[in-house]
Amino acid sequence: MLNKNPSRVPLMRFVLGAVSVAALLAGAPARAAEPVQPIELPKAVNPAQAELGKKLWFDPRLSRSGFISCNSCHNLSMGGSDNLKTSIGHNWQKGPINSPTVLNSSLNMAQFWDGRAEDLREQAGGPIANPGEMAFTHELAVDMLRSIPQYVAEFKQVFGSDKLSIAEVTTAIAAFEETLITPNARFDQWLKGDMKAINDQELRGYQLFKSAGCVACHNGPNLGGTSFQKMGLIEPYQTDNPAEGRYAVTKNDAERFNFKVPTLRNVELTYPYFHDGAADTLARAVDTMGRIQLGKTFSTQENADIVAFLKTLTGEQPRVVLPILPPSSDTTQRPRPFD
Amino acid sequence: MLNKNPSRVPLMRFVLGAVSVAALLAGAPARAAEPVQPIELPKAVNPAQAELGKKLWFDPRLSRSGFISCNSCHNLSMGGSDNLKTSIGHNWQKGPINSPTVLNSSLNMAQFWDGRAEDLREQAGGPIANPGEMAFTHELAVDMLRSIPQYVAEFKQVFGSDKLSIAEVTTAIAAFEETLITPNARFDQWLKGDMKAINDQELRGYQLFKSAGCVACHNGPNLGGTSFQKMGLIEPYQTDNPAEGRYAVTKNDAERFNFKVPTLRNVELTYPYFHDGAADTLARAVDTMGRIQLGKTFSTQENADIVAFLKTLTGEQPRVVLPILPPSSDTTQRPRPFD
Ligand code: HEC
Ligand code: HEC
Ligand code: HEC
Ligand code: HEC
Ligand SMILES: [Ca+2]
Ligand SMILES: [Ca+2]
Repeated sequence: MLNKNPSRVPLMRFVLGAVSVAALLAGAPARAAEPVQPIELPKAVNPAQAELGKKLWFDPRLSRSGFISCNSCHNLSMGGSDNLKTSIGHNWQKGPINSPTVLNSSLNMAQFWDGRAEDLREQAGGPIANPGEMAFTHELAVDMLRSIPQYVAEFKQVFGSDKLSIAEVTTAIAAFEETLITPNARFDQWLKGDMKAINDQELRGYQLFKSAGCVACHNGPNLGGTSFQKMGLIEPYQTDNPAEGRYAVTKNDAERFNFKVPTLRNVELTYPYFHDGAADTLARAVDTMGRIQLGKTFSTQENADIVAFLKTLTGEQPRVVLPILPPSSDTTQRPRPFD
Repeated sequence: MLNKNPSRVPLMRFVLGAVSVAALLAGAPARAAEPVQPIELPKAVNPAQAELGKKLWFDPRLSRSGFISCNSCHNLSMGGSDNLKTSIGHNWQKGPINSPTVLNSSLNMAQFWDGRAEDLREQAGGPIANPGEMAFTHELAVDMLRSIPQYVAEFKQVFGSDKLSIAEVTTAIAAFEETLITPNARFDQWLKGDMKAINDQELRGYQLFKSAGCVACHNGPNLGGTSFQKMGLIEPYQTDNPAEGRYAVTKNDAERFNFKVPTLRNVELTYPYFHDGAADTLARAVDTMGRIQLGKTFSTQENADIVAFLKTLTGEQPRVVLPILPPSSDTTQRPRPFD
């Protein structure tokens, strides 16, 4: 299985110049040694936990309004994101940052753009209590669940105990999220030896993706998620978005504007791009990356080749049967969307 | 198949006093002649249309914000409604009226609380362009779909023509909605002869439901949807909600405060109750109905019996595999949630 421990992954936190990257990748190796690996379905998810987690994932009663669920902002019909520049939260609040996909997010070394949550369990408590997202509290969320006999019974069955706290809630949600893996992209088929799975243009795009140096940051089975990197390494990135990236976590000045390198899996589906959602199209995102991360201006043809390659990274989307949520009981607190 | 033409259904628009109703139902007939019939799965839905309609049902790009889909207010995880007093629409606007379930709504003689749409096709155009709901326009919705090659191809395949207008959109959505039937409730099993499918209390509840006169209005396979009736027949209904019911359509004073009798199928899941969403629990709704529609005050036991019966009306919920939506193209207009 994948090594998710950041300390054991080559992080490349050092500044990578365009030249050194090119040098690093000059002798592009045989397929077995490609810098990108296929993803496989997760081995050991607890299915009962994941099934309960799926209910919680879709349950808007985890929000104060009764209207917003995890799936509102990470829509599994739309690549696990909301396709908005920044999200809409409780009371139609404008979110601060682009919603990243949850697809394959268990493969990332840390969660959030700035990596402030170590794993999915730690992450899942965040949005419920975030006043700009679900605007609830852990206490009220747990009270809600405890007031619903079917939930109480299912928690008991899944966890083998009467304890129903935020810890069980986030464990179940994380178990569901671990199932959200998208295997068998055309590019993975190619990696596994099917030469016809991608066409000439797509292969050219991949070769350029390697030789230009993209792969220095976007590598591993997730083509990202293995390091934090400066946004605007060669040329500063212009944005109105106040996010400071990794600096917010470490308060280390050298990490200002370092963001977790996002996965490029399913990137065709997760527009708009970048932490501020400023790039509407893949062509634009690739152009920006070339210029500000590598000091390269791609020709129209080169840009199109890379975009064509990136579209081979769309995997099989999780087949999700909509859960039927247990109804509230007479004692369940009703949601308060307007006060 | 069901006769959905209101003019051919006995509408009982005349005022029904408690006594006349009781008289009407005194000689409770053999099971074959029950005033409630089981529902069956729809026979002739076009599966390709329904599959396309399912995509549209879940696609928030039919709204101005890119955030609100049909499923936001008629959540198929929650009995086809949103379990809110009144809905949350574009820009967090407070809706005017409780969102009715879409489950089995094809069996109703007309759509909306006041019946202002004749059928599902006519209905489906409404919310897209309603400024308080999805706040889009039919033109922009159709432009959006036309800008997405996968949608264009699927419309062509399903309708056998290049025409992609709001008519095809609403036809497809309506075809999907026609699949949203919930057969095989325990009560239906009993109706079909399985004596053990409901217990003694539930049977007592059903007998009281008939003898008290509920069945005068809540009848047919949908236990409702066959007539408009005055809310507050015997005693006026107190509410702050300004909806005037059928009067808004006919401008006939005699129909002021007449509402379509809602289905009681899956009523366990569609709290809160009434057009203003004022009753949080079934016990409360049954109590109100007894008093203001029939002039009857049920004992605690009677109320509990009827509630127990109503809970036998929860059918098999539609098994919906979440659709994967075709991604926007580079030319698709991006949603504008905040302006
Ligand atoms: C109102 C919108 C909204 C809701 C609701 C929401 N999220 Fe998020 N989610 C976001 C945004 C925005 C981010 C990025 C925040 C950041 O990086 O600072 C995010 C980040 C994440 C990440 C990190 C992914 C990565 O690779 O870094 C995960 C996992 C996640 N959310 C899961 C959930 C779960 C589970 C829920 C429900 C309990 C949820 N989200 C509810 C908007 C939302
Ligand atoms: C030095 C590290 C680095 C290099 C080199 C690099 N990237 Fe990135 N890439 C990032 C980081 C960090 C982000 C996120 C930046 C942000 O959103 O603020 C990113 C974001 C992206 C995105 C947007 C993903 C999303 O979901 O928002 C795309 C597409 C992308 N990179 C493609 C490329 C391509 C193509 C190349 C080569 C031309 C490349 N990257 C080179 C670090 C790098
Ligand atoms: C913002 C909330 C909201 C959205 C979005 C929404 N609806 Fe509704 N829907 C309602 C409300 C509220 C009513 C009742 C309105 C009335 O009766 O005046 C309703 C009524 C209906 C009915 C009538 C059911 C019956 O038995 O009378 C149907 C069918 C329906 N909607 C389908 C849809 C479809 C299809 C879409 C998407 C194209 C949609 N709705 C989007 C809130 C919403
Ligand atoms: C004279 C007609 C009539 C009679 C008799 C009647 N109802 Fe109703 N019922 C209605 C109408 C009309 C509504 C919708 C009123 C509104 O929401 O304004 C309704 C609503 C309801 C609801 C709420 C459904 C929902 O989804 O909001 C329940 C539950 C209900 N009735 C049960 C009963 C029971 C139990 C009885 C007998 C004690 C009964 N009704 C008798 C006409 C009637
Ligand atoms: Ca994005
Ligand atoms: Ca309701």
